[in-house]
Amino acid sequence: MKAKIDNANATALQRMLDSQPVWVDVKAAHEVIPAMDKYQIFHAGPPVSWEEMCQPMQGAIVAALKYEGLATSTDEAFALASSGKIKFSPCHEARAVGPMTGIISYSMPVLVVENKTFGNLAFSTINEGAGDVLRFGAYSDNAVHRLIWMEKVLAPALKAAVNKMEGLSLKVIMAQALQMGDELHMRNQASSALFIKTMAKPLAEVVDDNKKLQEIMAFLTQNNDQFFLNFAMAAQKATADAAHGIEYSTLVTTIARNGVNVGIRVSGLGDQWFTAPAPPVDGLYFTGFSAADANPDIGDSAIMETCGLGGLAMAAAPAVVRFLGAGTYRDALKYTNDMYEITVGENPHFAMPNLDFRGTPMGIDIRKVIETSITPVINTAIVSSKAGVGMIGAGVARAPLSMFEQALLAFVEKLNL
Amino acid sequence: MKAKIDNANATALQRMLDSQPVWVDVKAAHEVIPAMDKYQIFHAGPPVSWEEMCQPMQGAIVAALKYEGLATSTDEAFALASSGKIKFSPCHEARAVGPMTGIISYSMPVLVVENKTFGNLAFSTINEGAGDVLRFGAYSDNAVHRLIWMEKVLAPALKAAVNKMEGLSLKVIMAQALQMGDELHMRNQASSALFIKTMAKPLAEVVDDNKKLQEIMAFLTQNNDQFFLNFAMAAQKATADAAHGIEYSTLVTTIARNGVNVGIRVSGLGDQWFTAPAPPVDGLYFTGFSAADANPDIGDSAIMETCGLGGLAMAAAPAVVRFLGAGTYRDALKYTNDMYEITVGENPHFAMPNLDFRGTPMGIDIRKVIETSITPVINTAIVSSKAGVGMIGAGVARAPLSMFEQALLAFVEKLNL
Repeated sequence: MKAKIDNANATALQRMLDSQPVWVDVKAAHEVIPAMDKYQIFHAGPPVSWEEMCQPMQGAIVAALKYEGLATSTDEAFALASSGKIKFSPCHEARAVGPMTGIISYSMPVLVVENKTFGNLAFSTINEGAGDVLRFGAYSDNAVHRLIWMEKVLAPALKAAVNKMEGLSLKVIMAQALQMGDELHMRNQASSALFIKTMAKPLAEVVDDNKKLQEIMAFLTQNNDQFFLNFAMAAQKATADAAHGIEYSTLVTTIARNGVNVGIRVSGLGDQWFTAPAPPVDGLYFTGFSAADANPDIGDSAIMETCGLGGLAMAAAPAVVRFLGAGTYRDALKYTNDMYEITVGENPHFAMPNLDFRGTPMGIDIRKVIETSITPVINTAIVSSKAGVGMIGAGVARAPLSMFEQALLAFVEKLNL
Repeated sequence: MKAKIDNANATALQRMLDSQPVWVDVKAAHEVIPAMDKYQIFHAGPPVSWEEMCQPMQGAIVAALKYEGLATSTDEAFALASSGKIKFSPCHEARAVGPMTGIISYSMPVLVVENKTFGNLAFSTINEGAGDVLRFGAYSDNAVHRLIWMEKVLAPALKAAVNKMEGLSLKVIMAQALQMGDELHMRNQASSALFIKTMAKPLAEVVDDNKKLQEIMAFLTQNNDQFFLNFAMAAQKATADAAHGIEYSTLVTTIARNGVNVGIRVSGLGDQWFTAPAPPVDGLYFTGFSAADANPDIGDSAIMETCGLGGLAMAAAPAVVRFLGAGTYRDALKYTNDMYEITVGENPHFAMPNLDFRGTPMGIDIRKVIETSITPVINTAIVSSKAGVGMIGAGVARAPLSMFEQALLAFVEKLNL
């Protein structure tokens, strides 16, 4: 049986390694998510009801309902959201991912990423930049207007540019950025700069209106160092999904948090979620905030760690360690070295120069997590537990051990059947 | 006397550290270099006559004479260059720097960098990108046409953009790029990407003609990862010049190579050059080339090392080590650690995350070079010894010890006067 599992894991790992995520298009969510209707909302993490949701997620849903024109005021939006008329489900169950609250509604433009090796698609919203933004639970008119501008101005330009380019390999940008100090979860300075570099000419080609081009360039280049994160997330989702559903495989293919619970899914265990209460984040807070103000861990962005980046690649990004309040360069090395203990392979495409080009740890095995009691480390932003306040810091969270225990039990049970 | 020298060096170091190089303008060389005429050519490194010059430098001069319209054919240009009618002098003596052959002629647009702290200016040509380029000795029509396009299209756009921005702090970009794996001499991937990110919106604002904007974006983003080098060189020249001319200071303020000789200048020794034969470069060659095809070390780009970047900051750029054929990550650390032995301080503005944010080694002291016999390490491109062939590899060179010995002797002699 051990050989069967090892073989299955080798297959799953190889499928991750062979994945070639390419950004191919921008479409409205309803165009790519089958049978989606206006009253459907996708959110980060495992399933959660309106009543159970954390405040920032509720705030983001209010913003989405206003943006969709389903409510004309905040009060109306809250009433509609709690009326039972809105259907909530995880992004992950629609081949999608969203950072922080992860809210995706009907009209929102999404990045379409195709795994060219295996043909599967993945979707992510477009990063809103900093400030008053839905992903951190903002529902002000500002936040809604930004979403409308993104739909009307930014998305068509990105769509036209990527269509003209016939796709953009995200793996190439990610590999370069990793060699430039990004771990691609909480540090996307290099990837976002490389993205601009890649897109500057195509965007100039497809946007005739110079004023619009200036607006787009301003949005992409000013106060928007995490812009590439959503591309990387969709790339990792397309990669993880290609390794999902391998019988006997004990590799983790989803880690996602909704701000109340965190959940994992395992390649050989179908679409079942194994959940635990979302942990607090150990981090650094912006002036005026402390751990008492923080929401527990939230967002689908742990897809970065699921496929070996973010916290798992901390060694490649020593500059992020200070931002997260996570210690020194030696600590960064230790995080990554620990992660090799719970993974079944390394990704030579994601080579870390300061480890003499060793590949990032790849393929988290629930058996190894249980054997070692070492849990995946997740780099993350911290959002206020109150809706509308936004980001208040950044830090490191640990995926709770109990999820891996439940998953291993389910695995044992399944094998006994 | 030792205290007098130490104090002078502390002053010189502090002036380097306090320097704030800001890109403020683009002008024609003759507009900024006093009394320059059409028959004057500036070149990299210490003084050298036409007859002594290496072939790539002669080739670049031929290109410049064709570009200036002083010769209509290659033969005519060679004849003019060797006629005695052209006056050759070092860029460094005109507050300028140029990579590789470093040729600057009358009409060439140059970057104007102002050291805002001390008011001194420095100049550099604009990087031509890869391929058939003057800086590597090309004199084909292609190379000349590129120079004309740069003068007519690129330079006016950059000028208008930087004027509108009222200057761009180069130190900020350099500090960020250093944290992104650039040593800013042979690796400028991050700095060049950050430059595009910074300039995309301003360029869109000042270039109305969309076709021209597309040409400019293409030039800046395609096959042009060293574009920022020339900005960094001018920034370092403005920094080094601010530390020059401090009585009793034994700090090096110039390291420059003309492909035949390499020369240094010392803060307390005025404008005197101390030279030695340019060493061979120990490096990796492109397919089809070997050390037998290589010109000795060439270019003013060792201004990067003069002020603590390039080879001195190798530890911050482990990815460059493979490109240069210079070993492993451990070797990168050793290069930088050795350089702390011959410098009088560290630059906290240039902090290296993987050394727990230790500053780069700053202020090369000729006394320390002699005491330790450790010579500055210079990262460099390798050019073919034949004109018109171009870049054939990249590697590491050592500034010869004998220059430092001569300088120290001159210093002792001066003090005895």
